[in-house]
Amino acid sequence: MRFFEDCDIGSREVLGIHHFTRDEIIAFATQYDPQPFHVDDEAAKRSLFGALCASGWHTAAQWMRCFVDHQQKGVLEARAAGLPVPSGNPSPGFKNLRWLKPVYVGDTITYASEVKEKQVSKSRPKWGILTAHNTGTNQHGDLVIEFDSVGFLERRSV
Amino acid sequence: MRFFEDCDIGSREVLGIHHFTRDEIIAFATQYDPQPFHVDDEAAKRSLFGALCASGWHTAAQWMRCFVDHQQKGVLEARAAGLPVPSGNPSPGFKNLRWLKPVYVGDTITYASEVKEKQVSKSRPKWGILTAHNTGTNQHGDLVIEFDSVGFLERRSV
Repeated sequence: MRFFEDCDIGSREVLGIHHFTRDEIIAFATQYDPQPFHVDDEAAKRSLFGALCASGWHTAAQWMRCFVDHQQKGVLEARAAGLPVPSGNPSPGFKNLRWLKPVYVGDTITYASEVKEKQVSKSRPKWGILTAHNTGTNQHGDLVIEFDSVGFLERRSV
Repeated sequence: MRFFEDCDIGSREVLGIHHFTRDEIIAFATQYDPQPFHVDDEAAKRSLFGALCASGWHTAAQWMRCFVDHQQKGVLEARAAGLPVPSGNPSPGFKNLRWLKPVYVGDTITYASEVKEKQVSKSRPKWGILTAHNTGTNQHGDLVIEFDSVGFLERRSV
């Protein structure tokens, strides 16, 4: 579990891996993005995607799930080792989200996060501000999603 | 159903209105963002939010649902009136997404989209490129989410 000081610029963590099934692609899209190429195999074949693929918001939401699981695992491991656990604050938002390739049924996406910038908060010196570049990459090595996030992370030394 | 030429800069459309229930907030967060303040009333009371609130990705995904419903309604209305229906292309992404206030159980969010910029595609003159500022506003008039999207829309006159 990393405090602000432990997050070196350029350091990269794999957050998790997710396999997208037909059922979950259709379940998400039926509720949140019911465009034909996300919910209907035949319509998807006739679309510019050529086959059923996940809503871009589904691909993004699954990044969040991997991030949360990764954080919660880190907390449990730190507690088990008797180590201090840094606090974090909810993210205020994201920048520059791009969907670069479709995520098709059966694709396996590896989500990762790389530290891009860091600075100590001037108004709240107990906290550091981290900017991270987040990615999802499919089993062929193709980037399918990327975005930049900003988050607040506790400093160890204050 | 608007073609590129019909989208004046500054024009604003309400895409839809959504009421966030406890059950759907917990259902989304259990699957995609299982942080305690999104899935557990008691933990949420002790958090900086003070009460159970929706995942930011849920608030964003619900914008997409309202957008899709709004588009599909427009297609049906145009067809019923014997009018031409413009084609659109999936969005390549968005910029500057900000979650400004929590969305609590029982909140009603009005989603809207306002045209910010427009230009004809140089490489594909049949298409226009629209930049829109998208918002979600709660029943108190507070902005809860905003982001800028880019989309491709067919031109009427080519």
